[in-house]
Amino acid sequence: MKLKVYADRLSQPVRAVIIFCEVNGIDYEEIKVDLANREHLTPEFAEINPMQQLPAIVHGSFKLFESHAILIYIASSFPGVADHWYPADVYKRSKIHSVLDWHHSNLRRGPITIVQNSILAPVFRSPLNPEAVAEGEKILSAALSKTESFWLDDNRPFLLGQNQPSIADLILVCDIMQIKLVGETDWNRLLGPYKKVQQWIESTRNATNPHFDELHKVLKELKEKLQN
Amino acid sequence: MKLKVYADRLSQPVRAVIIFCEVNGIDYEEIKVDLANREHLTPEFAEINPMQQLPAIVHGSFKLFESHAILIYIASSFPGVADHWYPADVYKRSKIHSVLDWHHSNLRRGPITIVQNSILAPVFRSPLNPEAVAEGEKILSAALSKTESFWLDDNRPFLLGQNQPSIADLILVCDIMQIKLVGETDWNRLLGPYKKVQQWIESTRNATNPHFDELHKVLKELKEKLQN
Repeated sequence: MKLKVYADRLSQPVRAVIIFCEVNGIDYEEIKVDLANREHLTPEFAEINPMQQLPAIVHGSFKLFESHAILIYIASSFPGVADHWYPADVYKRSKIHSVLDWHHSNLRRGPITIVQNSILAPVFRSPLNPEAVAEGEKILSAALSKTESFWLDDNRPFLLGQNQPSIADLILVCDIMQIKLVGETDWNRLLGPYKKVQQWIESTRNATNPHFDELHKVLKELKEKLQN
Repeated sequence: MKLKVYADRLSQPVRAVIIFCEVNGIDYEEIKVDLANREHLTPEFAEINPMQQLPAIVHGSFKLFESHAILIYIASSFPGVADHWYPADVYKRSKIHSVLDWHHSNLRRGPITIVQNSILAPVFRSPLNPEAVAEGEKILSAALSKTESFWLDDNRPFLLGQNQPSIADLILVCDIMQIKLVGETDWNRLLGPYKKVQQWIESTRNATNPHFDELHKVLKELKEKLQN
Protein backbone atom coordinates (compact mmCIF):
# COMPACT_ATOMS: atom_id res chain seq x y z
CA MET A 1 0.00 0.00 0.00
CA LYS A 2 2.11 2.85 -1.36
CA LEU A 3 1.53 6.39 -0.09
CA LYS A 4 0.38 8.76 -2.85
CA VAL A 5 1.45 12.39 -2.42
CA TYR A 6 -0.43 14.88 -4.63
CA ALA A 7 2.13 17.57 -5.25
CA ASP A 8 3.46 20.56 -7.11
CA ARG A 9 6.94 21.47 -5.89
CA LEU A 10 6.02 25.14 -6.33
CA SER A 11 4.02 24.75 -3.09
CA GLN A 12 6.06 25.17 0.11
CA PRO A 13 4.07 22.68 2.26
CA VAL A 14 4.41 20.16 -0.60
CA ARG A 15 8.18 20.59 -0.38
CA ALA A 16 8.06 19.98 3.40
CA VAL A 17 6.05 16.77 2.97
CA ILE A 18 8.34 15.41 0.24
CA ILE A 19 11.53 16.28 2.15
CA PHE A 20 10.04 14.48 5.16
CA CYS A 21 9.25 11.36 3.10
CA GLU A 22 12.73 11.32 1.56
CA VAL A 23 14.61 11.86 4.84
CA ASN A 24 12.61 9.09 6.52
CA GLY A 25 12.77 6.58 3.68
CA ILE A 26 8.99 6.51 3.18
CA ASP A 27 7.90 4.50 0.11
CA TYR A 28 5.78 7.09 -1.71
CA GLU A 29 4.63 8.07 -5.17
CA GLU A 30 4.61 11.77 -6.16
CA ILE A 31 1.60 12.63 -8.32
CA LYS A 32 1.91 16.00 -10.05
CA VAL A 33 -1.02 18.42 -9.82
CA ASP A 34 0.03 21.45 -11.87
CA LEU A 35 -0.98 24.59 -9.97
CA ALA A 36 -0.14 27.02 -12.80
CA ASN A 37 -2.41 24.97 -15.11
CA ARG A 38 -5.12 25.03 -12.40
CA GLU A 39 -5.23 21.23 -12.19
CA HIS A 40 -6.05 21.57 -8.47
CA LEU A 41 -9.37 23.13 -9.47
CA THR A 42 -10.57 20.15 -11.55
CA PRO A 43 -13.49 17.93 -10.41
CA GLU A 44 -11.06 14.97 -10.47
CA PHE A 45 -8.81 16.58 -7.88
CA ALA A 46 -11.84 17.66 -5.80
CA GLU A 47 -12.40 13.92 -5.23
CA ILE A 48 -8.96 13.79 -3.58
CA ASN A 49 -9.21 17.09 -1.70
CA PRO A 50 -12.56 18.96 -1.73
CA MET A 51 -10.72 22.12 -0.60
CA GLN A 52 -8.70 21.90 -3.84
CA GLN A 53 -5.34 22.68 -2.29
CA LEU A 54 -1.96 20.96 -2.12
CA PRO A 55 -0.57 18.83 -0.59
CA ALA A 56 -3.00 15.93 -0.20
CA ILE A 57 -2.30 12.24 0.37
CA VAL A 58 -4.07 8.97 -0.34
CA HIS A 59 -2.96 5.88 1.58
CA GLY A 60 -5.07 2.85 0.66
CA SER A 61 -8.64 4.10 1.08
CA PHE A 62 -7.60 6.88 3.47
CA LYS A 63 -7.52 10.47 2.16
CA LEU A 64 -6.03 13.42 4.02
CA PHE A 65 -5.19 17.08 3.41
CA GLU A 66 -3.57 19.94 5.39
CA SER A 67 0.23 19.66 5.58
CA HIS A 68 0.55 19.60 9.39
CA ALA A 69 -2.04 16.81 9.63
CA ILE A 70 -0.27 14.90 6.83
CA LEU A 71 3.15 15.11 8.53
CA ILE A 72 1.67 13.98 11.85
CA TYR A 73 -0.09 11.07 10.09
CA ILE A 74 3.08 9.90 8.33
CA ALA A 75 5.18 10.29 11.49
CA SER A 76 2.57 8.30 13.47
CA SER A 77 1.80 5.56 10.92
CA PHE A 78 5.07 4.61 9.25
CA PRO A 79 7.61 2.53 11.16
CA GLY A 80 11.09 3.95 11.31
CA VAL A 81 10.29 7.64 11.69
CA ALA A 82 12.54 8.76 14.58
CA ASP A 83 10.76 10.06 17.69
CA HIS A 84 12.28 13.57 17.47
CA TRP A 85 10.12 14.38 14.43
CA TYR A 86 6.90 14.08 16.46
CA PRO A 87 7.73 13.02 20.02
CA ALA A 88 5.49 10.52 21.84
CA ASP A 89 6.01 12.43 25.10
CA VAL A 90 2.81 14.40 25.73
CA TYR A 91 4.61 17.58 26.88
CA LYS A 92 6.99 17.72 23.90
CA ARG A 93 4.18 16.80 21.51
CA SER A 94 1.90 19.51 22.94
CA LYS A 95 4.60 22.13 22.41
CA ILE A 96 4.89 21.05 18.77
CA HIS A 97 1.12 21.41 18.38
CA SER A 98 1.40 24.88 19.92
CA VAL A 99 4.10 26.10 17.52
CA LEU A 100 2.24 24.59 14.51
CA ASP A 101 -1.04 26.26 15.55
CA TRP A 102 0.73 29.57 16.14
CA HIS A 103 2.37 29.24 12.71
CA HIS A 104 -1.00 29.25 10.89
CA SER A 105 -1.87 32.83 11.83
CA ASN A 106 1.67 34.22 12.09
CA LEU A 107 4.84 33.09 10.32
CA ARG A 108 2.94 31.32 7.51
CA ARG A 109 1.12 34.49 6.48
CA GLY A 110 4.28 36.55 5.93
CA PRO A 111 6.21 34.82 3.11
CA ILE A 112 3.13 33.68 1.19
CA THR A 113 1.67 37.21 1.22
CA ILE A 114 4.98 38.64 0.00
CA VAL A 115 5.60 36.23 -2.89
CA GLN A 116 1.98 35.90 -4.06
CA ASN A 117 1.67 39.67 -4.40
CA SER A 118 5.07 40.20 -6.01
CA ILE A 119 7.05 37.65 -8.00
CA LEU A 120 4.35 34.91 -8.19
CA ALA A 121 1.50 37.24 -9.21
CA PRO A 122 2.11 36.81 -12.99
CA VAL A 123 2.22 32.99 -12.64
CA PHE A 124 -1.24 32.98 -11.07
CA ARG A 125 -2.54 35.80 -13.32
CA SER A 126 -3.16 38.20 -10.43
CA PRO A 127 -2.03 41.83 -10.12
CA LEU A 128 1.13 43.03 -8.33
CA ASN A 129 0.20 44.55 -4.96
CA PRO A 130 2.95 46.54 -3.19
CA GLU A 131 0.68 47.40 -0.20
CA ALA A 132 0.04 43.70 0.40
CA VAL A 133 3.80 43.02 0.11
CA ALA A 134 4.49 45.69 2.77
CA GLU A 135 1.85 44.13 5.05
CA GLY A 136 3.41 40.69 4.44
CA GLU A 137 6.83 42.04 5.44
CA LYS A 138 5.36 43.43 8.67
CA ILE A 139 3.76 40.07 9.53
CA LEU A 140 7.00 38.26 8.67
CA SER A 141 9.18 40.54 10.83
CA ALA A 142 6.85 40.22 13.84
CA ALA A 143 6.80 36.42 13.49
CA LEU A 144 10.59 36.14 12.99
CA SER A 145 11.11 38.31 16.05
CA LYS A 146 8.95 35.94 18.17
CA THR A 147 10.77 32.95 16.66
CA GLU A 148 14.16 34.48 17.53
CA SER A 149 13.21 35.52 21.07
CA PHE A 150 10.90 32.68 22.13
CA TRP A 151 10.79 29.56 19.96
CA LEU A 152 14.59 29.30 19.58
CA ASP A 153 17.05 29.25 22.47
CA ASP A 154 20.74 30.12 22.63
CA ASN A 155 22.12 26.62 23.04
CA ARG A 156 20.24 24.18 20.86
CA PRO A 157 19.76 24.33 17.10
CA PHE A 158 16.04 23.55 16.72
CA LEU A 159 12.67 24.93 17.83
CA LEU A 160 11.58 24.26 21.42
CA GLY A 161 15.12 23.50 22.51
CA GLN A 162 15.38 20.23 20.58
CA ASN A 163 18.76 18.89 19.48
CA GLN A 164 17.17 17.24 16.45
CA PRO A 165 14.49 18.61 14.13
CA SER A 166 10.74 18.12 14.48
CA ILE A 167 8.04 18.45 11.83
CA ALA A 168 7.63 22.05 13.06
CA ASP A 169 11.20 22.99 12.05
CA LEU A 170 10.65 21.58 8.59
CA ILE A 171 7.27 23.26 8.02
CA LEU A 172 8.35 26.69 9.29
CA VAL A 173 11.70 26.73 7.47
CA CYS A 174 10.10 25.65 4.17
CA ASP A 175 7.66 28.55 4.51
CA ILE A 176 10.47 31.05 5.13
CA MET A 177 12.51 29.69 2.18
CA GLN A 178 9.94 31.15 -0.24
CA ILE A 179 11.60 34.54 0.39
CA LYS A 180 14.52 33.27 -1.73
CA LEU A 181 12.20 33.85 -4.72
CA VAL A 182 12.29 37.62 -4.27
CA GLY A 183 16.10 37.61 -4.28
CA GLU A 184 19.17 37.67 -2.05
CA THR A 185 18.95 41.42 -1.34
CA ASP A 186 15.46 41.11 0.12
CA TRP A 187 16.38 37.85 1.89
CA ASN A 188 19.31 39.63 3.61
CA ARG A 189 17.21 42.69 4.45
CA LEU A 190 14.34 40.64 5.91
CA LEU A 191 16.33 37.85 7.62
CA GLY A 192 19.47 39.86 8.51
CA PRO A 193 18.33 41.02 11.97
CA TYR A 194 17.61 37.46 13.14
CA LYS A 195 20.88 35.61 13.76
CA LYS A 196 19.38 32.59 15.56
CA VAL A 197 16.75 32.23 12.81
CA GLN A 198 19.50 32.15 10.18
CA GLN A 199 21.44 29.46 12.08
CA TRP A 200 18.24 27.45 12.57
CA ILE A 201 17.44 27.54 8.84
CA GLU A 202 20.96 26.28 8.13
CA SER A 203 20.66 23.55 10.80
CA THR A 204 17.34 22.38 9.33
CA ARG A 205 18.85 22.37 5.84
CA ASN A 206 21.89 20.36 7.00
CA ALA A 207 19.73 17.87 8.92
CA THR A 208 17.61 17.14 5.84
CA ASN A 209 20.12 17.39 2.96
CA PRO A 210 20.57 16.43 0.15
CA HIS A 211 16.75 16.41 -0.03
CA PHE A 212 16.33 19.96 1.25
CA ASP A 213 18.48 21.46 -1.51
CA GLU A 214 16.99 19.13 -4.13
CA LEU A 215 13.41 20.21 -3.31
CA HIS A 216 14.33 23.89 -3.22
CA LYS A 217 15.93 23.84 -6.71
CA VAL A 218 12.49 24.75 -8.03
CA LEU A 219 12.79 28.21 -6.44
CA LYS A 220 16.01 29.01 -8.32
CA GLU A 221 14.60 27.63 -11.59
CA LEU A 222 11.37 29.59 -11.23
CA LYS A 223 13.24 32.78 -10.37
CA GLU A 224 15.42 32.48 -13.47
CA LYS A 225 12.37 31.69 -15.62
CA LEU A 226 10.52 34.75 -14.34
CA GLN A 227 13.55 37.00 -14.91
CA ASN A 228 14.01 35.90 -18.55
CA MET B 1 -1.59 19.71 40.64
CA LYS B 2 -4.59 21.81 39.60
CA LEU B 3 -4.84 23.01 36.01
CA LYS B 4 -4.79 26.82 35.73
CA VAL B 5 -6.77 28.26 32.81
CA TYR B 6 -5.99 31.91 32.01
CA ALA B 7 -9.26 33.20 30.66
CA ASP B 8 -11.62 35.98 29.69
CA ARG B 9 -15.00 34.58 28.71
CA LEU B 10 -15.22 37.26 26.01
CA SER B 11 -12.77 35.09 24.04
CA GLN B 12 -14.38 32.29 22.01
CA PRO B 13 -11.51 29.77 22.33
CA VAL B 14 -11.51 30.45 26.09
CA ARG B 15 -15.18 29.46 26.15
CA ALA B 16 -14.39 26.24 24.26
CA VAL B 17 -11.62 25.29 26.72
CA ILE B 18 -13.80 25.98 29.80
CA ILE B 19 -16.81 24.11 28.38
CA PHE B 20 -14.46 21.18 27.68
CA CYS B 21 -13.13 21.21 31.26
CA GLU B 22 -16.65 21.41 32.72
CA VAL B 23 -18.12 18.65 30.53
CA ASN B 24 -15.21 16.34 31.34
CA GLY B 25 -15.06 17.05 35.08
CA ILE B 26 -11.51 18.46 34.92
CA ASP B 27 -10.34 19.99 38.22
CA TYR B 28 -9.30 23.47 37.06
CA GLU B 29 -8.96 27.04 38.27
CA GLU B 30 -10.10 29.91 36.03
CA ILE B 31 -7.79 32.92 36.31
CA LYS B 32 -9.27 36.09 34.83
CA VAL B 33 -7.13 38.11 32.40
CA ASP B 34 -9.26 41.12 31.48
CA LEU B 35 -8.92 41.73 27.73
CA ALA B 36 -10.80 45.06 27.74
CA ASN B 37 -8.37 46.32 30.43
CA ARG B 38 -5.46 45.00 28.34
CA GLU B 39 -4.24 42.72 31.11
CA HIS B 40 -3.05 40.25 28.45
CA LEU B 41 -0.46 42.85 27.39
CA THR B 42 1.21 43.10 30.82
CA PRO B 43 4.76 41.78 31.43
CA GLU B 44 3.27 39.45 34.10
CA PHE B 45 1.06 37.74 31.54
CA ALA B 46 3.91 37.59 29.00
CA GLU B 47 5.58 35.19 31.46
CA ILE B 48 2.57 32.88 31.02
CA ASN B 49 2.14 33.37 27.25
CA PRO B 50 4.78 35.40 25.37
CA MET B 51 2.30 35.80 22.49
CA GLN B 52 0.00 37.63 24.95
CA GLN B 53 -3.19 35.92 23.86
CA LEU B 54 -5.88 33.86 25.54
CA PRO B 55 -6.41 31.08 26.44
CA ALA B 56 -3.23 29.82 28.08
CA ILE B 57 -2.78 27.07 30.68
CA VAL B 58 -0.29 26.24 33.40
CA HIS B 59 -0.20 22.69 34.75
CA GLY B 60 2.52 22.28 37.36
CA SER B 61 5.62 23.66 35.65
CA PHE B 62 4.17 23.10 32.14
CA LYS B 63 2.92 26.14 30.21
CA LEU B 64 0.93 25.97 26.98
CA PHE B 65 -0.99 28.30 24.66
CA GLU B 66 -3.05 27.93 21.44
CA SER B 67 -6.55 26.56 22.06
CA HIS B 68 -6.31 23.48 19.80
CA ALA B 69 -3.04 22.44 21.45
CA ILE B 70 -4.57 23.02 24.90
CA LEU B 71 -7.64 20.87 24.17
CA ILE B 72 -5.46 18.07 22.77
CA TYR B 73 -3.22 18.27 25.85
CA ILE B 74 -6.14 18.07 28.29
CA ALA B 75 -7.81 15.26 26.32
CA SER B 76 -4.50 13.32 26.27
CA SER B 77 -3.35 13.95 29.86
CA PHE B 78 -6.41 13.78 32.08
CA PRO B 79 -7.97 10.40 32.85
CA GLY B 80 -11.68 10.12 32.17
CA VAL B 81 -11.90 12.16 28.95
CA ALA B 82 -13.96 9.93 26.60
CA ASP B 83 -12.19 8.78 23.43
CA HIS B 84 -14.65 10.52 21.05
CA TRP B 85 -13.25 13.94 22.02
CA TYR B 86 -9.81 13.09 20.55
CA PRO B 87 -9.82 9.51 19.29
CA ALA B 88 -6.74 7.31 19.77
CA ASP B 89 -7.33 5.73 16.33
CA VAL B 90 -4.74 7.27 13.99
CA TYR B 91 -7.18 7.69 11.07
CA LYS B 92 -9.89 9.40 13.15
CA ARG B 93 -7.30 11.51 14.94
CA SER B 94 -5.70 12.59 11.66
CA LYS B 95 -9.07 13.74 10.32
CA ILE B 96 -9.55 15.85 13.46
CA HIS B 97 -6.12 17.42 12.91
CA SER B 98 -7.16 18.13 9.31
CA VAL B 99 -10.38 19.92 10.22
CA LEU B 100 -8.61 21.90 12.99
CA ASP B 101 -5.82 22.98 10.60
CA TRP B 102 -8.37 23.91 7.93
CA HIS B 103 -10.29 25.91 10.55
CA HIS B 104 -7.34 28.27 11.20
CA SER B 105 -7.39 29.84 7.74
CA ASN B 106 -11.10 29.44 6.99
CA LEU B 107 -14.05 29.27 9.40
CA ARG B 108 -12.13 30.96 12.25
CA ARG B 109 -11.44 34.08 10.20
CA GLY B 110 -15.10 34.80 9.38
CA PRO B 111 -16.83 35.45 12.74
CA ILE B 112 -13.83 37.15 14.37
CA THR B 113 -13.45 39.55 11.44
CA ILE B 114 -17.17 40.38 11.55
CA VAL B 115 -17.46 41.05 15.30
CA GLN B 116 -14.10 42.78 15.77
CA ASN B 117 -14.91 45.29 13.04
CA SER B 118 -18.51 45.90 14.10
CA ILE B 119 -19.94 45.41 17.58
CA LEU B 120 -16.64 44.76 19.43
CA ALA B 121 -14.72 47.67 17.87
CA PRO B 122 -15.70 50.15 20.64
CA VAL B 123 -14.70 47.67 23.38
CA PHE B 124 -11.18 47.43 21.94
CA ARG B 125 -11.05 51.15 20.99
CA SER B 126 -10.74 50.46 17.27
CA PRO B 127 -12.81 51.99 14.41
CA LEU B 128 -15.87 50.40 12.82
CA ASN B 129 -14.96 48.94 9.41
CA PRO B 130 -17.89 47.93 7.15
CA GLU B 131 -15.58 46.74 4.33
CA ALA B 132 -13.84 44.34 6.71
CA VAL B 133 -17.27 43.13 7.94
CA ALA B 134 -18.32 42.42 4.34
CA GLU B 135 -15.05 40.51 3.75
CA GLY B 136 -15.64 38.57 7.00
CA GLU B 137 -19.14 37.61 5.81
CA LYS B 138 -17.68 36.32 2.52
CA ILE B 139 -15.09 34.18 4.35
CA LEU B 140 -17.79 32.90 6.73
CA SER B 141 -20.19 31.92 3.93
CA ALA B 142 -17.48 30.07 1.98
CA ALA B 143 -16.42 28.19 5.12
CA LEU B 144 -20.00 27.34 6.18
CA SER B 145 -20.68 26.07 2.68
CA LYS B 146 -17.68 23.69 2.89
CA THR B 147 -18.77 22.63 6.38
CA GLU B 148 -22.30 21.88 5.13
CA SER B 149 -21.19 20.01 2.00
CA PHE B 150 -18.05 18.22 3.22
CA TRP B 151 -17.36 18.14 6.95
CA LEU B 152 -20.96 17.23 7.90
CA ASP B 153 -22.90 14.26 6.49
CA ASP B 154 -26.63 13.62 6.24
CA ASN B 155 -26.91 10.93 8.87
CA ARG B 156 -24.73 11.73 11.84
CA PRO B 157 -24.82 14.85 14.00
CA PHE B 158 -21.13 15.75 14.33
CA LEU B 159 -18.16 16.62 12.11
CA LEU B 160 -16.43 13.77 10.26
CA GLY B 161 -19.45 11.49 10.65
CA GLN B 162 -19.03 11.06 14.41
CA ASN B 163 -22.02 10.19 16.59
CA GLN B 164 -20.47 12.03 19.51
CA PRO B 165 -18.62 15.36 19.54
CA SER B 166 -14.87 15.85 19.20
CA ILE B 167 -12.78 18.84 20.21
CA ALA B 168 -13.22 20.07 16.61
CA ASP B 169 -17.01 20.38 17.00
CA LEU B 170 -16.58 22.41 20.16
CA ILE B 171 -13.92 24.74 18.75
CA LEU B 172 -15.72 25.43 15.46
CA VAL B 173 -19.16 25.91 17.02
CA CYS B 174 -17.80 28.29 19.69
CA ASP B 175 -16.25 30.37 16.90
CA ILE B 176 -19.54 30.54 14.97
CA MET B 177 -21.50 31.47 18.12
CA GLN B 178 -19.80 34.89 18.15
CA ILE B 179 -22.23 35.88 15.38
CA LYS B 180 -24.94 35.97 18.10
CA LEU B 181 -23.31 39.26 19.17
CA VAL B 182 -24.40 41.05 15.99
CA GLY B 183 -28.03 39.97 16.54
CA GLU B 184 -30.65 37.42 15.53
CA THR B 185 -31.41 39.08 12.17
CA ASP B 186 -27.81 38.76 11.01
CA TRP B 187 -27.51 35.27 12.54
CA ASN B 188 -30.55 34.12 10.53
CA ARG B 189 -29.32 35.81 7.34
CA LEU B 190 -25.81 34.32 7.61
CA LEU B 191 -26.68 30.86 8.98
CA GLY B 192 -30.11 30.43 7.31
CA PRO B 193 -28.86 28.74 4.11
CA TYR B 194 -27.02 26.01 6.04
CA LYS B 195 -29.53 23.55 7.54
CA LYS B 196 -27.00 20.86 8.52
CA VAL B 197 -24.78 23.51 10.15
CA GLN B 198 -27.73 24.73 12.24
CA GLN B 199 -28.56 21.18 13.39
CA TRP B 200 -24.90 20.56 14.18
CA ILE B 201 -24.65 23.71 16.33
CA GLU B 202 -27.75 22.55 18.24
CA SER B 203 -26.33 19.02 18.64
CA THR B 204 -23.05 20.41 20.00
CA ARG B 205 -24.97 22.69 22.38
CA ASN B 206 -27.13 19.78 23.63
CA ALA B 207 -24.10 17.50 24.05
CA THR B 208 -22.30 20.04 26.25
CA ASN B 209 -25.15 21.70 28.17
CA PRO B 210 -25.71 23.19 30.72
CA HIS B 211 -22.11 24.40 30.33
CA PHE B 212 -22.52 25.56 26.73
CA ASP B 213 -25.37 27.95 27.60
CA GLU B 214 -23.64 29.06 30.81
CA LEU B 215 -20.45 30.04 28.97
CA HIS B 216 -22.33 31.82 26.21
CA LYS B 217 -24.31 34.03 28.63
CA VAL B 218 -21.48 36.53 28.28
CA LEU B 219 -22.53 37.21 24.67
CA LYS B 220 -26.08 38.21 25.67
CA GLU B 221 -24.80 40.33 28.56
CA LEU B 222 -22.23 42.09 26.38
CA LYS B 223 -24.79 42.72 23.65
CA GLU B 224 -27.20 44.34 26.12
CA LYS B 225 -24.37 46.40 27.62
CA LEU B 226 -23.30 47.68 24.21
CA GLN B 227 -26.87 48.54 23.24
CA ASN B 228 -27.50 50.61 26.41
